[in-house]
Amino acid sequence: MSVIKGFSVLDEHALEDLANGCAFLGSGGGGDPYYSILEITSLLSNSQFNDVTIISADTLDDDAVVAPCGWLGAPTVSLEKLPSGTEATAGLARLEQVLGKKIDAIFPVEIGGSNGLAPFILALKTGLPIVDCDGMGRAFPESQMVIFNVVGISASPAVMTDAKGNTLVIDTVDNEAEELVARAAAVALGGSCHLFEYVQTGKQVKQHAIHGTISLALEIGRKMRRVKSSGSDPTDALLSVIRQNADYGYGGILFEGKITDVKRETNQGFSVGHLLVETFDGQQQMEVKFQNENLIAKIGERVVATVPDIISVLDCETAQTITTEQLRYGQRVKIVSASAPGVLRSPAALAIMGPSAFGMVEQYQPVELLNGWES
Amino acid sequence: MSVIKGFSVLDEHALEDLANGCAFLGSGGGGDPYYSILEITSLLSNSQFNDVTIISADTLDDDAVVAPCGWLGAPTVSLEKLPSGTEATAGLARLEQVLGKKIDAIFPVEIGGSNGLAPFILALKTGLPIVDCDGMGRAFPESQMVIFNVVGISASPAVMTDAKGNTLVIDTVDNEAEELVARAAAVALGGSCHLFEYVQTGKQVKQHAIHGTISLALEIGRKMRRVKSSGSDPTDALLSVIRQNADYGYGGILFEGKITDVKRETNQGFSVGHLLVETFDGQQQMEVKFQNENLIAKIGERVVATVPDIISVLDCETAQTITTEQLRYGQRVKIVSASAPGVLRSPAALAIMGPSAFGMVEQYQPVELLNGWES
Repeated sequence: MSVIKGFSVLDEHALEDLANGCAFLGSGGGGDPYYSILEITSLLSNSQFNDVTIISADTLDDDAVVAPCGWLGAPTVSLEKLPSGTEATAGLARLEQVLGKKIDAIFPVEIGGSNGLAPFILALKTGLPIVDCDGMGRAFPESQMVIFNVVGISASPAVMTDAKGNTLVIDTVDNEAEELVARAAAVALGGSCHLFEYVQTGKQVKQHAIHGTISLALEIGRKMRRVKSSGSDPTDALLSVIRQNADYGYGGILFEGKITDVKRETNQGFSVGHLLVETFDGQQQMEVKFQNENLIAKIGERVVATVPDIISVLDCETAQTITTEQLRYGQRVKIVSASAPGVLRSPAALAIMGPSAFGMVEQYQPVELLNGWES
Repeated sequence: MSVIKGFSVLDEHALEDLANGCAFLGSGGGGDPYYSILEITSLLSNSQFNDVTIISADTLDDDAVVAPCGWLGAPTVSLEKLPSGTEATAGLARLEQVLGKKIDAIFPVEIGGSNGLAPFILALKTGLPIVDCDGMGRAFPESQMVIFNVVGISASPAVMTDAKGNTLVIDTVDNEAEELVARAAAVALGGSCHLFEYVQTGKQVKQHAIHGTISLALEIGRKMRRVKSSGSDPTDALLSVIRQNADYGYGGILFEGKITDVKRETNQGFSVGHLLVETFDGQQQMEVKFQNENLIAKIGERVVATVPDIISVLDCETAQTITTEQLRYGQRVKIVSASAPGVLRSPAALAIMGPSAFGMVEQYQPVELLNGWES
């Protein structure tokens, strides 16, 4: 790339803001951001780079080589199995060797939880710029649930690395096989691996990525932080950002109450389960099912939101998103939903990331229609 | 390699002889050779090569690049999931690309079932010579159960391919991780994949491979065929070849009777189960446990043979070995054992391929001691 026009991001509060915004957009998934925050904070004082440059996709050369990155596995595992810190850099070196090309820029494959922060760690180690975009506009549990798969970009060659130095180069004839192989291998290696996949040109990033999602995550976090100091409601602040965003547009509170039950197991590389929330007066109950990410929310038998729309569980007081692996009995929560970007709602996208892709019988309906949020 | 001194093998009966010998040495595993025989027969009339050159390990240059090859998965799967025919050639091309070197020769990673024949298919497509050796002196269910692992040769880089064109390059920090990852990925890809691993120099082949096992398999098959036409007992012929071989040395019949029960399931990429055999007078019972290969044989509670010694189930009349996935109720069988080559019986080897490596509590004891075959 000849010129990078970007903005530097890691000012005093940006990391916390970004983490809070990613957690919300992640729909409960993408992993708990806590360890990533610790790693970034450590790198900021110890690395040769002390800032990260975010560039707009517009500034990419058409033939730039851009690599989405992130972690694959069950978030419950990543709480206990810490990274060694070499996974992403070792993967990047191998990826460049396989491609015979240098990577010009990186971005998060999903804007959620710790995966939204993953490229920041790599950027602080390499100086690579991060493109202000992601591949999902949220987080999804399976790697083929990405807009690049919808438009026919190949996941291969994918490079997976683990904390011990094990490396896999995966070339599959379709993107579903890539998920199957990567998931099985990640489980065999302990349940949490770093993955580069869907490497693409600058032109493809411009055409197909979900743009501006890092900025959006930052803005969500910043607004929430600012209203807290003024005593206003941070959930309102979060929703106002979503409603003003052209790609998302609708957002609202689906339910408010206390978590009365969490069922969760780590199965085949996923955290799978459900939670039950009861209103404080005990009159109504919501069930939310999840597979890493929250997939569907029902009040009694009435569906009020499904994938790909965002469903996040927020702490009642702080409005901080509680990722699925951190849900506990007794937490007082608001279940908040936001409409997914339009490109995730096409028939082709819904076939890959809608309710039927998770084996659910419920038909997708936009959350704003289900809840009468249209004005 | 400058000069290849070898012998051509595929005369009129050699294929059948080889398959019968491999099946016996395979200890019930390595896959049913039937489809491999069909594929080789077809190649012999359609390929540009109409013979295979077998070379002695002695003739290899020290710096020759030699690739063991074979199939990984459950033999029960390979009965139903046929190869496309492109797996080994695609894997070879990728392996040479990863190494940046041409492969000079190949050999079977294990001398058993269809895996003993696998290099013949590749040789008929490429003209590559086959080294008269293998890595196990028999067959084992797990890929790290190989003499090259015992002596510290790395399995990486390993290249795995499937019938659809999916390809994995696996680099692991230890050989146990290579088996775990390859097995998990093979299961994800349908349960049967072609694998190159433990690529080594000519010098390493000379030092560490189990030599002469292709010749031995051929000789076993040839002797069995010749005595059949004369009306003598083919099991005796088989055992006489084993007893005259310096590496194996001891062999005998453990039990004779009718199969009264077979329990077998395909689990985590293996065929796992046991069979029960009863003497024709109903007075005694033998149990044989298997994981792809036969692992232990007991008469009542008395252990009469365990891995790594060879335990094969032979048809009473023909002395043909019945691979574990072909065992059926009612078959009349002889359970035959042969002592494993000495290098498989060292403490270091037993830790990797002895009873404890399969979670069995029984201590290894040489089959000739257990059965008083020493003269």
